[in-house]
Amino acid sequence: MNESTGGATGGRTATRESRFAELIENAAGRRVPALVNGAVQTPFRGVAAHRPTGNKAAAPIRSCADYPTSGDKRAPSLRDALERAGLCDGMTISTHHHLRNGDRIGTLALQTAAAMGARDLRWFPSASFPCHEPVIGLMDKGHVHHIEGSMNGPLGRYCSEGRMRGQGVLRSHGGRWQAIQDGEVEIDIAVLAAPSADFFGNANGSHGRSACGSLGFALADATWAKHVIVVTDNLVPFPCLPWQIQGNFVDQVVVVDSIGDPAQIVSGTTEMTKSPDRLLIAEYVARFIRDAGILRDGFSFQAGAGGTSLAFLPYVKQMMREQGIRAGFARGGSTRYLVEMLEEGLIGAILDGQTFDLEAVRSIRDNPRHVATTPFTSYNYHGKGHFASMVDVTVLGATEVDVDFNANVVTHSDGVLLHGIGGWQNCLAAGCTILAVPSFRDRIPVLLDRVTTLCGPGELIDVVATERGIAINPRRQDLLDAVRGSDLPIRPIQDLKREIEALCGGAPRPPEPSYDPVAVVKWVDGTVLDAVWRTSV
Amino acid sequence: MNESTGGATGGRTATRESRFAELIENAAGRRVPALVNGAVQTPFRGVAAHRPTGNKAAAPIRSCADYPTSGDKRAPSLRDALERAGLCDGMTISTHHHLRNGDRIGTLALQTAAAMGARDLRWFPSASFPCHEPVIGLMDKGHVHHIEGSMNGPLGRYCSEGRMRGQGVLRSHGGRWQAIQDGEVEIDIAVLAAPSADFFGNANGSHGRSACGSLGFALADATWAKHVIVVTDNLVPFPCLPWQIQGNFVDQVVVVDSIGDPAQIVSGTTEMTKSPDRLLIAEYVARFIRDAGILRDGFSFQAGAGGTSLAFLPYVKQMMREQGIRAGFARGGSTRYLVEMLEEGLIGAILDGQTFDLEAVRSIRDNPRHVATTPFTSYNYHGKGHFASMVDVTVLGATEVDVDFNANVVTHSDGVLLHGIGGWQNCLAAGCTILAVPSFRDRIPVLLDRVTTLCGPGELIDVVATERGIAINPRRQDLLDAVRGSDLPIRPIQDLKREIEALCGGAPRPPEPSYDPVAVVKWVDGTVLDAVWRTSV
Repeated sequence: MNESTGGATGGRTATRESRFAELIENAAGRRVPALVNGAVQTPFRGVAAHRPTGNKAAAPIRSCADYPTSGDKRAPSLRDALERAGLCDGMTISTHHHLRNGDRIGTLALQTAAAMGARDLRWFPSASFPCHEPVIGLMDKGHVHHIEGSMNGPLGRYCSEGRMRGQGVLRSHGGRWQAIQDGEVEIDIAVLAAPSADFFGNANGSHGRSACGSLGFALADATWAKHVIVVTDNLVPFPCLPWQIQGNFVDQVVVVDSIGDPAQIVSGTTEMTKSPDRLLIAEYVARFIRDAGILRDGFSFQAGAGGTSLAFLPYVKQMMREQGIRAGFARGGSTRYLVEMLEEGLIGAILDGQTFDLEAVRSIRDNPRHVATTPFTSYNYHGKGHFASMVDVTVLGATEVDVDFNANVVTHSDGVLLHGIGGWQNCLAAGCTILAVPSFRDRIPVLLDRVTTLCGPGELIDVVATERGIAINPRRQDLLDAVRGSDLPIRPIQDLKREIEALCGGAPRPPEPSYDPVAVVKWVDGTVLDAVWRTSV
Repeated sequence: MNESTGGATGGRTATRESRFAELIENAAGRRVPALVNGAVQTPFRGVAAHRPTGNKAAAPIRSCADYPTSGDKRAPSLRDALERAGLCDGMTISTHHHLRNGDRIGTLALQTAAAMGARDLRWFPSASFPCHEPVIGLMDKGHVHHIEGSMNGPLGRYCSEGRMRGQGVLRSHGGRWQAIQDGEVEIDIAVLAAPSADFFGNANGSHGRSACGSLGFALADATWAKHVIVVTDNLVPFPCLPWQIQGNFVDQVVVVDSIGDPAQIVSGTTEMTKSPDRLLIAEYVARFIRDAGILRDGFSFQAGAGGTSLAFLPYVKQMMREQGIRAGFARGGSTRYLVEMLEEGLIGAILDGQTFDLEAVRSIRDNPRHVATTPFTSYNYHGKGHFASMVDVTVLGATEVDVDFNANVVTHSDGVLLHGIGGWQNCLAAGCTILAVPSFRDRIPVLLDRVTTLCGPGELIDVVATERGIAINPRRQDLLDAVRGSDLPIRPIQDLKREIEALCGGAPRPPEPSYDPVAVVKWVDGTVLDAVWRTSV
């Protein structure tokens, strides 16, 4: 950590100064800071334009001579474990978010470190949730310097208001792997919640009362962190099978009463939207996929757990049944809807990044064709290919889309940071990317002239489906040709925008940028795509 | 590759000179070369005495921009693939040995490279077998400079006779992982045979007509090699499930007619020894484990597929049934004998490094408690512990044992190199290490004053079981105490040795060392434990 970011002795003033660093216009025409938290940045150079050099980062070499021959790596408490890990001021502590809004370990790790007197920590979660709101107090008191990772809800607002000392760095799931792999972020101590683990540190997320399915987000941390602590509430006899985290990466194991609130980790069942507008969008999306010729035997798709993406599944399922079509694989976020399709034989395999409900947890535990993936296999742009680009069609959401098909997923039209990127940027690599969005929310149009924050370059976004019509990116003449005979309401994006503005009483007034960068949005290759500016408090 | 080893322009003379490098006496009292193939060595410093420093090696960072978005990485032929991989003189080519004496890919890779005109290659197999004898011709013609890895049979003899231009480096399975991980060996191109693979490079060894079970030996190569080529005779639709090799590590996929001879890859059934002497040793071993109190509920064991180790299983199985004892896990080399015990509930899990027969292949494919392991999880000494040290008792063989309990597994008493180390050194980390050996072979005593080649330091070897009695290492007073009341023939090792020498007509005359080091034996931490000296042709 550079001194100018605060470091061990930092205060708010130093950080404020560093935020007002030089701004550079990148290849997307966005002004981005040249320095973030004191580190020199590479501005976005265009899709697939930046080529990495050098070798991957690597963890220190260890010796079995320093670990118990019995394999028993249990520490009496998390505090003891952090002490043995050599916790120091300014360290980077990482956690994963597979327990979502039920997670107790992220907050516990930071609170424990704070109680031990640590200051200026960088928290590097794979995502943070409203349940982590207590971290705001730890930031106010100086224990945590800043959060580097998705900030949902109150933490995002805290960052937006310029109250975080350091700058937020928003990455996709694949981008987080890339950043760790490439040595952009060095994790000092990974504290990894595990629904099942043995004393050696072998761990999985598919078994135990806090089961969350895959633990894929924790794999980069386990591989690269200098010190790895597994925290479990379900210690099983060695060997913990299956092991998704290999104990050979783990330094210590801590047993606690509870790693999270099961009711918040997975929902019992995933709820489908009942909104007629959203259902109409979902139906349009399914029909588009069929009419464009994407729905063919062996095709593949990705659909998240969000309202409209989920609602598209019953429609596509019905079409597949009618036409005798079987998908080669589906990428998840897995839910019972995908599981039903797998079990019915409509999908060859589920390649699962996150497991969202109890049926999906059961399936990933018991069905060998429901496989846990990692951001490495699915999303890492600095690898030898990834699954994301092999997906024929992906259905995603967005907070805003503009007439150049650029999209935003992290801020609202008032510029306030409220959401993480998740796998969204990585999914744009699919053969056809469809944004399924309502045309307005709270009477604020979703279609704009220019998105507040750029998260996805328009050249990668092929279709915008709203309840008022479907716009196809003019770059995709092949898709425009394919649906020529379709009875779907295919319309130019400008037409759609005009209609929506007429309904909402005009375009929303874009926020005046403060040009005080409280966070940056990284592209999948580690370059800086856009900045999030401080909003007025 | 250092010029003094020959390198791109090397010849036999240069190499001969480099072999006569300075010899240093190490902590085991063995004279070892200070330089091996031009690289400076660390002599053995004692068990657990050498501490590594620095970070692990790491492969170059790649970009998805350079790989097909379709995921299809097929190359038309192995020759094309090697060309695209940038094959050059002096490169290191690695292969794995899961296809054992049925492997066609090791030889094919080198022959293809030779046909392309490549010279002075270093072949870095996880082990080589008699089927690889054609590599001798490639070494004679200068295409292959030397083999770095286990050399069984004719290749070992070729090396022993000083005909290989470079020096052999003999490592355990764990030592090979350590050497790659620590950057001691950089692999330029890994050519990995896969019984099943998809076009993206996801691969397993458990399915297909050339199924061999686990592919664990190939994992270090996949992770660290600069370029990875998967070769399969069973291309399956994406996704190949399960994937033990992740396609994200793979650059190219080549489909060939046959990767190996199934009859030589796995035996239909494993044969148990019928020798009354060997059966008696096996019975002694089982009784020792029982009488020493090691055979208790939840215990763990490792028994290889070799004659006597295998024969010990029926005895121990019977005892476990009688006493109602269940093992927590068994480490394999897996065979139908282990599989039967797993299926009967006598073993909680098989942690499998190599799969030796068809029943074991079926089991690892279908039984979630029969798990493929890697040299990382099981054996790597430069990790955060390993499975090997968690095994309560391991039963191994040896070519020679001496009165200080030092043992040899690579040379015979005439000094000729004929065997690889396998996982043998790594297994010495077990709670109790038993060498099950006949007291003599071809009228040559197995018990000696000093082993010809030191592969395992005596302080790690606890028990030597022969058909004439069992010797316990005096360092293990706990074991001596435990079996005090036993009716087993427990005898001092010197007594045993005297009896055997009387039978065989005296001690064998040790070969006069030529002090021309044709190969070295590495210890599990990368230090040099002993040398193999050129024998007279």
